[in-house]
Amino acid sequence: MIYNDTIVALATPSGSGAIAIIRLSGKNAITIADDNFKSVTPKKSLKNQKTHTIHLGHIVDGKRTLDEVLVSIFKNPNSYTGEDVVEISCHGSSYVQQEIIQLFLRCGCRMANAGEFTLRAFLNGKLDLSQAEAVADLISSDNEASHQIAMQQMRGGFSSEIAKLREELLNFASLIELELDFAEEDVEFADRAQFKELIERITFVLKRLIDSFAVGNVIKNGIPVAIVGEPNVGKSTLLNALLNEDRAIVSEIAGTTRDTIEDEISIGGIGFRFIDTAGIRETEDVVESIGIKKTFEKIEQSQVTIYLFDAQKNIASLEDVRIEIEKIRNKHPQKPLLVIANKIDTLTDIQLAEINKIIADVLLLSAKTGFGVEQLTNSILNLINTGALRNNETIVTNTRHYDALLKASEEIQKVRNGLETGLSGDLLAIDIRQALYHFGEITGEITNDDLLGNIFANFCIGK
Amino acid sequence: MIYNDTIVALATPSGSGAIAIIRLSGKNAITIADDNFKSVTPKKSLKNQKTHTIHLGHIVDGKRTLDEVLVSIFKNPNSYTGEDVVEISCHGSSYVQQEIIQLFLRCGCRMANAGEFTLRAFLNGKLDLSQAEAVADLISSDNEASHQIAMQQMRGGFSSEIAKLREELLNFASLIELELDFAEEDVEFADRAQFKELIERITFVLKRLIDSFAVGNVIKNGIPVAIVGEPNVGKSTLLNALLNEDRAIVSEIAGTTRDTIEDEISIGGIGFRFIDTAGIRETEDVVESIGIKKTFEKIEQSQVTIYLFDAQKNIASLEDVRIEIEKIRNKHPQKPLLVIANKIDTLTDIQLAEINKIIADVLLLSAKTGFGVEQLTNSILNLINTGALRNNETIVTNTRHYDALLKASEEIQKVRNGLETGLSGDLLAIDIRQALYHFGEITGEITNDDLLGNIFANFCIGK
Repeated sequence: MIYNDTIVALATPSGSGAIAIIRLSGKNAITIADDNFKSVTPKKSLKNQKTHTIHLGHIVDGKRTLDEVLVSIFKNPNSYTGEDVVEISCHGSSYVQQEIIQLFLRCGCRMANAGEFTLRAFLNGKLDLSQAEAVADLISSDNEASHQIAMQQMRGGFSSEIAKLREELLNFASLIELELDFAEEDVEFADRAQFKELIERITFVLKRLIDSFAVGNVIKNGIPVAIVGEPNVGKSTLLNALLNEDRAIVSEIAGTTRDTIEDEISIGGIGFRFIDTAGIRETEDVVESIGIKKTFEKIEQSQVTIYLFDAQKNIASLEDVRIEIEKIRNKHPQKPLLVIANKIDTLTDIQLAEINKIIADVLLLSAKTGFGVEQLTNSILNLINTGALRNNETIVTNTRHYDALLKASEEIQKVRNGLETGLSGDLLAIDIRQALYHFGEITGEITNDDLLGNIFANFCIGK
Repeated sequence: MIYNDTIVALATPSGSGAIAIIRLSGKNAITIADDNFKSVTPKKSLKNQKTHTIHLGHIVDGKRTLDEVLVSIFKNPNSYTGEDVVEISCHGSSYVQQEIIQLFLRCGCRMANAGEFTLRAFLNGKLDLSQAEAVADLISSDNEASHQIAMQQMRGGFSSEIAKLREELLNFASLIELELDFAEEDVEFADRAQFKELIERITFVLKRLIDSFAVGNVIKNGIPVAIVGEPNVGKSTLLNALLNEDRAIVSEIAGTTRDTIEDEISIGGIGFRFIDTAGIRETEDVVESIGIKKTFEKIEQSQVTIYLFDAQKNIASLEDVRIEIEKIRNKHPQKPLLVIANKIDTLTDIQLAEINKIIADVLLLSAKTGFGVEQLTNSILNLINTGALRNNETIVTNTRHYDALLKASEEIQKVRNGLETGLSGDLLAIDIRQALYHFGEITGEITNDDLLGNIFANFCIGK
């Protein structure tokens, strides 16, 4: 136990619902709860109850009964925080919740800071740091991919891999440092061939993890997509059509505003952010071409660009469309671009053939009828390298981890070069220590208060 | 067990928080949970666990792990609904919640209707109807008084009193009906003197309960207060000053909008609704007197009227103020009126004495400095008959109960008159049956599907 005080917080979302959970953690959690609890069974004391049991009764403030509640007991170390934990399941009135929390505050609890329950879990060794960070990621996950990655990380997939390599490296570091003590005898405790093999292995793993960040980052933050094209080509209709493909989850969550839904769409379990769609909507009514400059600005912010044109309107000027697409391709040759001919529902086969002839790789679509929308979503997904995701590989999503991996990788390269050039043990040892340091940063074996403060400040209260 | 199906719902407020509770109830609740649960302890089956125990593990959908959860088991009849109940405490991501609920729906659960858990509790005899209604009242209670009344009702205070009287009455009814079978022998099984005493007792209790509705109703719905007066006399400032007296609870609840705070203020544990404050705020800027007609409209909707005037501005025309106050008093002689001289902070003692001389019972106040605000809140509270509340008496807050009590009271008066006029047993019995019927409506011994549908439709999902 690192803390002497007992913390309390509402663990469920604020607002009214059927029930709410108030969570206490710390060495006095059970005593404080017991002092204010009157069991329906006479003479039942919470202190004498087994861990992982639930008790019906009333929370009382002196003579006043605050609520009928269920109290769950978790005894140290078998709890989320590793301390004694009590969870009070009370009625979901904001008034009742506040009254109970205020009562516990008067009885010596302290209001928990953001993430403090998880911080205590980390400090008590229940989770390593990257697992703790995954808890926050899991809570904020809003699509299948980000959820899957957070779950994997929370179960230790990522940090156990790092921890294993770190241990092997630590082992070699010790041997090399041991050599330094026998420097005059010129012995080699650390087998250089084996050590090289380990460094190669670490290099390989680090490269894979660092590379995974590209996909991890977009999965966590959503993939930015720009839909560009002249006004009235059907951008809003297309957005709505895409939305209908996967609205099951978002629509059931109360409080999700329509604006948010439109801007963030989950396709095939991956979140897509449509850039500046509000702006697109605004200009829908204005009959003037969006300047090419504004289009390029949007493309720069995006990872995928969708160029949309009105096939009905532009059938006479397909050549102009082709030139505009070429301009975009020339300016951003590396950026995936999907070209879509919209409103094709009333066109003849001859007209469609004409489009295909002049515009290369065009996707024929009718946002209105839904024709071609599925092909579009497949095309978008194909543009994202989701191979790692499908193969259940570890994916790095956290910028802090990414930075530490990059730094560790740099140090490992120094060690590698040192080994090749026959660098002396004492100099090698310095680089190894540095690499070990950065590995430790990820799992939390190396921490400082500022770092912890930063990480847990992003949590919600009650977790 | 009345239902064959198993229901599922989110029991905590929607939105993101640290944790969320998903609740299952019904005969397959434990089996369905178990089929999708993988305990951290190998080979642990939820089916073999004791009631009121908690189990750590993962919710799995085939090979996919949805979340790490705590599962609480409540076995029939020792649960809220009286059925087998499982509560899943999962991470508070909306995505995770939805995935888990969808999984259970695929496994044969049905989405619970609003209030269906409590409806099942009622149908399984865990609660009577007025207790079930109190659950919804408790959840929506937002001040001390409404909370206290709901708690009292939920613990059966009200319905047990009614049920006891009903039983006594039922007893006499049986005896009187028995007499009918022996009508030719002219016997009296039911002691008329005792019966009269019971009817007097019932009359007394019914009168007390019916009278309590006046205070109960205002406590439940908030006491409507009209603040009237010319523009720029400081109505908004006064509202803010009152607000500061008791903002502790409201301010801590996220999502409470400022507008709501300003319109509903809790003073001394009782909710006050300030009528048409938006209108007041709108007209603040318009330099024109509010017509006396509009003022009267507001007063008619209110239970308490606060008349505010600007002492600085009106010091020369106190006589006009006096006349206006008199107009209000004449129009609504029964309605409590508090007269306040605002902005008195810069006035001299002589000026204050002048005000007191011309305006009777005036409260001197400065909303800006806060002087007099406490005296005002005390005055407001004194106007409300909170005696019953303070004395912990049963208070009727529910319109349905009030109606049933009124009807029961009418029937009891008929019985009373019948007894006095020596009405024959068969006619007495009819009136008694009617009274019994209305008593039964309150506790739910007499129900129909429409009534139940109406009551439980007002609940939130998950309760």
